[in-house]
Amino acid sequence: MPTAEPPAIVLVAPQLGENIGMVARAMLNCGVTDLRLVNPRDGWPSEKARDASSGAFSVIDGARVFETTGEAIADLARVYATTARPREMVGRVLTPRAAATEIRGQESAGRAGVLFGGERSGLANEDVSLADTIVTVPLNPDFTSLNLAQAVLLVAYEWFTAGDDTAPERLETNFSARATKAELENFVTRLGSVLDAGGFFRSPDMRPSVMRNIRNLFQRARPTDQEVRTLHGVVVAAKRAGANEARAGTAEPEEG
Amino acid sequence: MPTAEPPAIVLVAPQLGENIGMVARAMLNCGVTDLRLVNPRDGWPSEKARDASSGAFSVIDGARVFETTGEAIADLARVYATTARPREMVGRVLTPRAAATEIRGQESAGRAGVLFGGERSGLANEDVSLADTIVTVPLNPDFTSLNLAQAVLLVAYEWFTAGDDTAPERLETNFSARATKAELENFVTRLGSVLDAGGFFRSPDMRPSVMRNIRNLFQRARPTDQEVRTLHGVVVAAKRAGANEARAGTAEPEEG
Repeated sequence: MPTAEPPAIVLVAPQLGENIGMVARAMLNCGVTDLRLVNPRDGWPSEKARDASSGAFSVIDGARVFETTGEAIADLARVYATTARPREMVGRVLTPRAAATEIRGQESAGRAGVLFGGERSGLANEDVSLADTIVTVPLNPDFTSLNLAQAVLLVAYEWFTAGDDTAPERLETNFSARATKAELENFVTRLGSVLDAGGFFRSPDMRPSVMRNIRNLFQRARPTDQEVRTLHGVVVAAKRAGANEARAGTAEPEEG
Repeated sequence: MPTAEPPAIVLVAPQLGENIGMVARAMLNCGVTDLRLVNPRDGWPSEKARDASSGAFSVIDGARVFETTGEAIADLARVYATTARPREMVGRVLTPRAAATEIRGQESAGRAGVLFGGERSGLANEDVSLADTIVTVPLNPDFTSLNLAQAVLLVAYEWFTAGDDTAPERLETNFSARATKAELENFVTRLGSVLDAGGFFRSPDMRPSVMRNIRNLFQRARPTDQEVRTLHGVVVAAKRAGANEARAGTAEPEEG
């Protein structure tokens, strides 16, 4: 779990309480908890926000309301402004991922915050000019239409993953260990004997390469020790099925 | 823009049309267009889905409906199942970012798809077992509550950014070029002369290091050529203000 101080999320002139609630939900999913509201149109506190937060009450109840963006960011050392489109001003523009890396890397330089505009038209240029840096989410240029909570989610998610040490890939083994090489080889060897007895190899020349392919197939599946035991059982059951049919006189005719 | 074939998004037993619409919107933001629905509870087509898609009609109108998950994925070569919690089965578990990299890297191996469960309880184990690989979004372990469209957004966003060549950082210069080193140095030299004339440096020893700090400050701001011209104008105006006050007899008293 990241222990770093997450950025403050500043919503400037948000409209619907429901959307503020969905922002709180998106934030808490990513461990981001400091919500600041500048002039929320429908007032605060908001029952609709609480209802839409899906239980992210700690964020809702801790939210602070300010009259101006300047007051909302007064204690912050670095401020990022999210915009969907280029603005007629000069400044650094970062992707959310680059911004997240920067926020994580510059923690000792003071608290960071991210500004988001209201639902209708985003941030005013006045608000953008209060920020050090612009953040723009790279999206399909033919259809760029994130709602407020989705924009907050992507920024907060990037902050979370920038400090998250989840392995990109892991094997869920359901409490059993992966089979050792010896266990796997033991199975492959036994399977080879059964295949010999069943006349699987038409020519002895084929055997080594076919067995390599079979070993490779089972190896690629990365079985657990329990699964290798299951495979042994499968082979035993297949032989038993053949024996039963032979006794009953319903066996498959021998090939060749 | 990514030109690669995006993964199919398969919603298994989704409930509300509105949520399907928000999924379509999230998809199209990321250039993902192939939407497949397995047994949508409230039927299909859905006006509510269309309304909630914010104009992502190409995705809504192209969506296909299937009776079983097996039919929905029949043409796919690789299938990922999204789950929020560990399942009692053995398998690979990837982050959305690792899955996105894999999907991009294995395109020639056939079409990929990602399964998402319905709003209430996610994917059934039966559906998860149809997938090659599990995808779990790393989130705050104390509050993991993504809605359907948010889960789709994060997976689609990771696919998009894995193929996106947007520079992590760029300088928006509003159609003017960044100042050359000569332009910046010219300004700094001129400013130094004005500061000399204004008695800014108490001791000549300080001058070199103070001028280095001043150059560094302006350099860090990475000004455009237009902005350097503005800075020249600022200096001229400050001198003129002083001259005006001197003529009017209201000048600041000389220090020292």
